[in-house]
Amino acid sequence: VAFIRVLIPALWHIQDPASQRLTWNKPPKSVLVIKKIQDASLLQPFKELCVFLTEKNMIVYVERKVLADPVIQADESFAAVIQRFCTFREDLDDISNRVDFIICLGGDGTLLYASSLFQKTVPPVMSFHLGSLGFLTPFNFDTYQSQVTQIIEGNAAIILRSRLRVVKESREKNARVDKKGIIKTNGDSEGSRKAMQYQVLNEVVVDRGPFSYLSNVDLFLDGHLITTVQGDGVIVSTPTGSTAYAVAAGASMIHPNVPAIMITPICPHSLSFRPIVVPAGVELKIMLSRDSRNTAWVSFDGRKRQEICHGDNITITTSCFPVPSICFQDPVNDWFESLAQCLHWNVRKKQNYLSSKEDVF
Amino acid sequence: VAFIRVLIPALWHIQDPASQRLTWNKPPKSVLVIKKIQDASLLQPFKELCVFLTEKNMIVYVERKVLADPVIQADESFAAVIQRFCTFREDLDDISNRVDFIICLGGDGTLLYASSLFQKTVPPVMSFHLGSLGFLTPFNFDTYQSQVTQIIEGNAAIILRSRLRVVKESREKNARVDKKGIIKTNGDSEGSRKAMQYQVLNEVVVDRGPFSYLSNVDLFLDGHLITTVQGDGVIVSTPTGSTAYAVAAGASMIHPNVPAIMITPICPHSLSFRPIVVPAGVELKIMLSRDSRNTAWVSFDGRKRQEICHGDNITITTSCFPVPSICFQDPVNDWFESLAQCLHWNVRKKQNYLSSKEDVF
Amino acid sequence: VAFIRVLIPALWHIQDPASQRLTWNKPPKSVLVIKKIQDASLLQPFKELCVFLTEKNMIVYVERKVLADPVIQADESFAAVIQRFCTFREDLDDISNRVDFIICLGGDGTLLYASSLFQKTVPPVMSFHLGSLGFLTPFNFDTYQSQVTQIIEGNAAIILRSRLRVVKESREKNARVDKKGIIKTNGDSEGSRKAMQYQVLNEVVVDRGPFSYLSNVDLFLDGHLITTVQGDGVIVSTPTGSTAYAVAAGASMIHPNVPAIMITPICPHSLSFRPIVVPAGVELKIMLSRDSRNTAWVSFDGRKRQEICHGDNITITTSCFPVPSICFQDPVNDWFESLAQCLHWNVRKKQNYLSSKEDVF
Amino acid sequence: VAFIRVLIPALWHIQDPASQRLTWNKPPKSVLVIKKIQDASLLQPFKELCVFLTEKNMIVYVERKVLADPVIQADESFAAVIQRFCTFREDLDDISNRVDFIICLGGDGTLLYASSLFQKTVPPVMSFHLGSLGFLTPFNFDTYQSQVTQIIEGNAAIILRSRLRVVKESREKNARVDKKGIIKTNGDSEGSRKAMQYQVLNEVVVDRGPFSYLSNVDLFLDGHLITTVQGDGVIVSTPTGSTAYAVAAGASMIHPNVPAIMITPICPHSLSFRPIVVPAGVELKIMLSRDSRNTAWVSFDGRKRQEICHGDNITITTSCFPVPSICFQDPVNDWFESLAQCLHWNVRKKQNYLSSKEDVF
Repeated sequence: VAFIRVLIPALWHIQDPASQRLTWNKPPKSVLVIKKIQDASLLQPFKELCVFLTEKNMIVYVERKVLADPVIQADESFAAVIQRFCTFREDLDDISNRVDFIICLGGDGTLLYASSLFQKTVPPVMSFHLGSLGFLTPFNFDTYQSQVTQIIEGNAAIILRSRLRVVKESREKNARVDKKGIIKTNGDSEGSRKAMQYQVLNEVVVDRGPFSYLSNVDLFLDGHLITTVQGDGVIVSTPTGSTAYAVAAGASMIHPNVPAIMITPICPHSLSFRPIVVPAGVELKIMLSRDSRNTAWVSFDGRKRQEICHGDNITITTSCFPVPSICFQDPVNDWFESLAQCLHWNVRKKQNYLSSKEDVF
Repeated sequence: VAFIRVLIPALWHIQDPASQRLTWNKPPKSVLVIKKIQDASLLQPFKELCVFLTEKNMIVYVERKVLADPVIQADESFAAVIQRFCTFREDLDDISNRVDFIICLGGDGTLLYASSLFQKTVPPVMSFHLGSLGFLTPFNFDTYQSQVTQIIEGNAAIILRSRLRVVKESREKNARVDKKGIIKTNGDSEGSRKAMQYQVLNEVVVDRGPFSYLSNVDLFLDGHLITTVQGDGVIVSTPTGSTAYAVAAGASMIHPNVPAIMITPICPHSLSFRPIVVPAGVELKIMLSRDSRNTAWVSFDGRKRQEICHGDNITITTSCFPVPSICFQDPVNDWFESLAQCLHWNVRKKQNYLSSKEDVF
Repeated sequence: VAFIRVLIPALWHIQDPASQRLTWNKPPKSVLVIKKIQDASLLQPFKELCVFLTEKNMIVYVERKVLADPVIQADESFAAVIQRFCTFREDLDDISNRVDFIICLGGDGTLLYASSLFQKTVPPVMSFHLGSLGFLTPFNFDTYQSQVTQIIEGNAAIILRSRLRVVKESREKNARVDKKGIIKTNGDSEGSRKAMQYQVLNEVVVDRGPFSYLSNVDLFLDGHLITTVQGDGVIVSTPTGSTAYAVAAGASMIHPNVPAIMITPICPHSLSFRPIVVPAGVELKIMLSRDSRNTAWVSFDGRKRQEICHGDNITITTSCFPVPSICFQDPVNDWFESLAQCLHWNVRKKQNYLSSKEDVF
Repeated sequence: VAFIRVLIPALWHIQDPASQRLTWNKPPKSVLVIKKIQDASLLQPFKELCVFLTEKNMIVYVERKVLADPVIQADESFAAVIQRFCTFREDLDDISNRVDFIICLGGDGTLLYASSLFQKTVPPVMSFHLGSLGFLTPFNFDTYQSQVTQIIEGNAAIILRSRLRVVKESREKNARVDKKGIIKTNGDSEGSRKAMQYQVLNEVVVDRGPFSYLSNVDLFLDGHLITTVQGDGVIVSTPTGSTAYAVAAGASMIHPNVPAIMITPICPHSLSFRPIVVPAGVELKIMLSRDSRNTAWVSFDGRKRQEICHGDNITITTSCFPVPSICFQDPVNDWFESLAQCLHWNVRKKQNYLSSKEDVF
């Protein structure tokens, strides 16, 4: 038979999601603790955790503004611990090579914030929920001591959550230069261009901003125009982001181990425009359509909201820098556990709908 | 830094969907032509194609029942061509090692049928639509001569469409043995068990069959119960199948290059039970819940419909034998072209909804 | 101005849903108690209620099969109460003019069953939930004594739940005659025809039954073909039924006071075929399309499932005999209370989705 | 039997949608012609129509800005016709009692604009589509002469499209007074309050405006808090509006004769928050939740976008002033005709999805 069969098995290797594990080449020494601010309920756990880590001889990094909280300042018993902290300031101090792992205290937003601090390689992240389970926070704080000890010992499954690398290139006469992510290109005939780069863990959103109607937005895949979005906007998300804004806009929920990018229209005019899932290896580009009257707006994990004007373009690829999230059990169990909790699966009494005489008599 | 960074790039290799190409290690000699029967409009194209292939010195395989058509029998000018055909009978003759590639004439169902003929390795398939473009039939018959010549010369992109390997194991006293796919297991304490195996290209469906209410159906992933489905049923589909029944049940549309399995509930009682996408490497199992009163029904690509009783189980994994579909352009363009046609993307006049004074004055 | 303005206010009178109240023209004397059978948890409440009603000198009607329960038979203390019951048999004894009101104990199915017992006028129904609140069972049994007393005194809001009158006319040579609902028509050229009539409170469903594919089904409105349904089937429901099967198939939820009929496709092939809501005054007709290969199946509130063959037709209009359901508070509060409970509204912690740095820092 | 059965039929009278017809008490003399501006393709039809109406001795009202178009000014042959026009200016001149009927040329937006010109009684409107059929523009211009003549003779079905009366009451120190719709209330303890009133034909939208996250918005029905909306916003629409923005957000499509109000959440966090349909007689109120951090934004038929601050409230009831739309055939046929066209019903080839071997062999 002429067809080269051997081609298939090579392409067809399927990675086992359960096989990724955290391994240290030397014992971790430094930990970044990220705490949601303005949440009084987190103060006591935060202090306990910091004391515990200090006693374990870990170097603890804390953002300077976390310590600015008057309640922390006023706590004299905590002063000695604080003195041993290493502090840093967002956007000013680079800690990317100084942290062995990260502990997050708070909701899913805490992990998004941690992601934003590391535009390149991200250390492994351990996320605690204090109240109810989130999609991104599998650890319960009640047993933090044994859990943290286990991580330090390197005994944990890990899931690599893909991020999107988003470059916004705009046609601006006066390009401002920023420490983080600006790639200044040489001026072309239309003046100099500015490019900003973002790493997003959940999604990039292009929407109508303050207008009543979305400008028509063209969506390109690997250089080909695939459709023009008419509606409230479009969400380009990671599998991690599929359970965030995208699911509210009608998307299916994708396990974070699937190498894919999800494109979800927001309230599309065309009723047959469904969310679509494309391979992680493609390049997406979003631009205002030539004939659109309004501008559009873009945001990155819900932040850094800015206008998109004619001639600007947003280029999206899977990032080389995923977020290694430490699992409570393993990638599959953790995900279904969070779905069950967040979506009330199996909570309601069985046969609530559709009950009928057949159930009764 | 302690975290082994080198781990990530290795896991993070993303396959380029455009890179898969058909290559012959020696020129193809035999071709299986599959024609939708009972469709008079296909007769003339079928005869033309067969004459063309014969003139190219290809050995043409045709299913015996295709030739049984009285119109074909009556066509004396075609008799000479028929004599050179190799014929075979479904379920009786094994042609799996005798065919270099396949040509399908008809709708998407023709490719599903071709898939069912090859329970192990599938030769590359070239699918022509005669009328409107389908999801699985990218080639237009108008230029079949140059297109087929190009394939014979080995000049084409290819997409490997994953299939699901589905094993239905049932508790039966008297296991019948069938030429295709039965794995007879030794009797356990409950009597002998029978296992049937199927390769599906679109989906396995478990539904309520002739009942008004679905039995509760338990869904296991890698051995863990993840949810109990209440509703009309559940669809487990490939990415190829995501644009078939699954999309009608609310699923997102997944590009065939994404290594994933889609699980779509059909009219679920729980309004928050959305379709979910899991990595291609998992093992799914479906069983009737212990307390369910009715049985359920299962079908495979819409065929071989049969009952699921207490104690039966359906095990689903990604098959080692995908269907290599020959692309018209490439996997990305072909897919979006079919979406645009099948879903009327961009057909309607712009701004039809939401029109308002702002558009007008 | 020439336009007759006075036309509008007359048409534009909008009924106040809160204004319908239960009023007795003489004190009620007889009550039908309906109990879900095979549910041990209902026995004690059932007996308590019956004793209470007997002490109030009400004539209690109970279905004969309810008393057949061995546990009830064995309860000697209850024997005296039983002796005072009036019993009847479904489909055999007509109690439609002997019952002043109905009390249901059980889930939503109990009310569907009560509805099926009264093919013409339905007495007011008071529905108790024992466990969790259903869509149709607003009363909590804990305070049944004061609640029932209040109803007997005529102090309650009422909601008229519309029903659908469904006539299935089939072309049969040998029309059987049945006590309930058969209208035998004179034989036409194709032989005699049989017509069965049903009153449904939730919905009529036409589906593919045991087949993998639905026959094409034509939908007529006031005599005009409006669309051909391709998919798993179609649900024609009352507003009451909109929160049952229809909502699982994607329908919006309609308050029972809205005079409307909902048409919901089940997994339609056309992705733009949305559920539609038409005025209560229209006549719908459903038939197999001329070119459909399979038959279809119809069921009425999930019961009496039967085949639809070529030439049969299903005619649906709003019934003249709604079900007067007694409200716990009033039609609006009761409905939203049941939505909140059944759909977990406002249960989940706020800002669970979409949480981001903006929420955090 | 004690239950007052006579109560039911009175409540149960169902209006026949086909029975509403246009009747003149004296021949109409004046007509308002509304033309979408900045659309060159409409100029010739507009001029033709005006000449025709003038020849019929109708007094033609035209908005002054329509005549400002340089192309119209330059057309000398049209000058004589223009001289006979009555002109007016939006927001300045009151023509509400001077127009017998209205003719719209353009898309659905033209009817929304016509609606906005009449805050109280609206004359009957005849809407022409020039290109493709819209939801609100049933007449084809090709046969305008006979069609307009028929309307003038009073021979037409009519549909009363309900509008919503929306009052936005805000807490502002310096209430501006406007000719249209301001009801200045006396200052309360928190300073003077301002109330604006709008009549909307499609929908009121409350959304997140330029923010990434919606403030929590409380929704009250007849004074009771029914839910808090979390998501992108909420659409309160008429049945007419159900096929506009609401359907893109997932709503079912409601025939304009159904007396109802539709409430549709936009991308709600809670996956079980479905669109709901309530009786036309209720009063809805929308306010920012007490604990919301951002403000929200409101718009009326896509126009007059403005901020909602803490303490503001939006009150919505069915208006006493519907829009009488003249039907091409009748309310039922016109609606289904527009659905079929706008949603591509029955356009696609049958059995495109789900095609399988069963269809083929």
